[in-house]
Amino acid sequence: MRTFTDYLWFTTAERQQFVRITDEVSDIVARSGVHDGMALVSAMHITSGVFVNDWEDGLIHDFQVWLETLAPAGRPYRHHQTGEDNADAHLKRTIMGHQVLLPVTGGALDLGPWEQVFYAEFDGCRRKRVVVKVMGAGA
Amino acid sequence: MRTFTDYLWFTTAERQQFVRITDEVSDIVARSGVHDGMALVSAMHITSGVFVNDWEDGLIHDFQVWLETLAPAGRPYRHHQTGEDNADAHLKRTIMGHQVLLPVTGGALDLGPWEQVFYAEFDGCRRKRVVVKVMGAGA
Amino acid sequence: MRTFTDYLWFTTAERQQFVRITDEVSDIVARSGVHDGMALVSAMHITSGVFVNDWEDGLIHDFQVWLETLAPAGRPYRHHQTGEDNADAHLKRTIMGHQVLLPVTGGALDLGPWEQVFYAEFDGCRRKRVVVKVMGAGA
Repeated sequence: MRTFTDYLWFTTAERQQFVRITDEVSDIVARSGVHDGMALVSAMHITSGVFVNDWEDGLIHDFQVWLETLAPAGRPYRHHQTGEDNADAHLKRTIMGHQVLLPVTGGALDLGPWEQVFYAEFDGCRRKRVVVKVMGAGA
Repeated sequence: MRTFTDYLWFTTAERQQFVRITDEVSDIVARSGVHDGMALVSAMHITSGVFVNDWEDGLIHDFQVWLETLAPAGRPYRHHQTGEDNADAHLKRTIMGHQVLLPVTGGALDLGPWEQVFYAEFDGCRRKRVVVKVMGAGA
Repeated sequence: MRTFTDYLWFTTAERQQFVRITDEVSDIVARSGVHDGMALVSAMHITSGVFVNDWEDGLIHDFQVWLETLAPAGRPYRHHQTGEDNADAHLKRTIMGHQVLLPVTGGALDLGPWEQVFYAEFDGCRRKRVVVKVMGAGA
């Protein structure tokens, strides 16, 4: 049995930004030596998330518009009495999910034809981290 | 340590349909030879999901009505400029979740009394797939 | 390879209540003897969930107000024709998530600085259960 852990770091240019990370996760899986198992990809911050969906700019725009209707910024959230201004980011990441667990088969991510992995930043422009932990049987 | 992988295929009669898959997943767990571990059940398409909830027709109806209010079909989504018409399906599956990880204890799914596993189709009437990967210790 | 399973029990004072369980989960991880792996924390009931977010009372209040707007109680849900009155609890737990998978590194939870684990009760005042299963390599 093998385990392998690495971290991805992000400093997005925008406060809210989705970053495709399928290739970075695939690379960690390749380096892990795991032939059959699972790869956890999990945001280590509570105003960002990780999700699997389509790599299509129109849909990414739709997601962001939709999240603004479900969890709008600028409301008088009680969290802001602490001096924070990012309560909406906590809510938005909750909708999108904070982690995914990806199957590893034959030494590679076992994804469907359209599945892409994304880091979802909702309070960016600062250094944040995602943990990737691969666990399973070696070759 | 054992790993075991199988795939479930679905071609639903309706565009949007929830299908109970607890028995199919239990069968894969039994065939895996895993006595203690975890079973990942994950949609391989980005307009369908997998979730755990109640097996009660009224509640399933409530879920579908609710999803339509949160992520309505027929809006002018930008994704539709690509020729697609299913942006709402991507959003709905995000609410319901795209995967679950089920504990396996004593060689069987370790579920609470009311927990049932469902495949949630939001753009069906075509052949789609779910991966089930079981990992853990043998007997 | 090691696996270790324990259960946490809750009887909340309020129908809807969030309970921080980071310490309880950490304790189970310590007792598991797993040095590198993953810890599944999953609600065994379908009207409660488990999530990771901030330990800040204002934000917890914001989450509860927000969930009431997205999935209000007191609507004529079809589920209630069975005699139940908790359809909103099923919907709310779906938004918050029913489980998390936490990385274990160096024998401890590998969490970011603000990540805290919560049990989210939406139909409480009765005895309910969470499964914690830890799997990975020993020291």
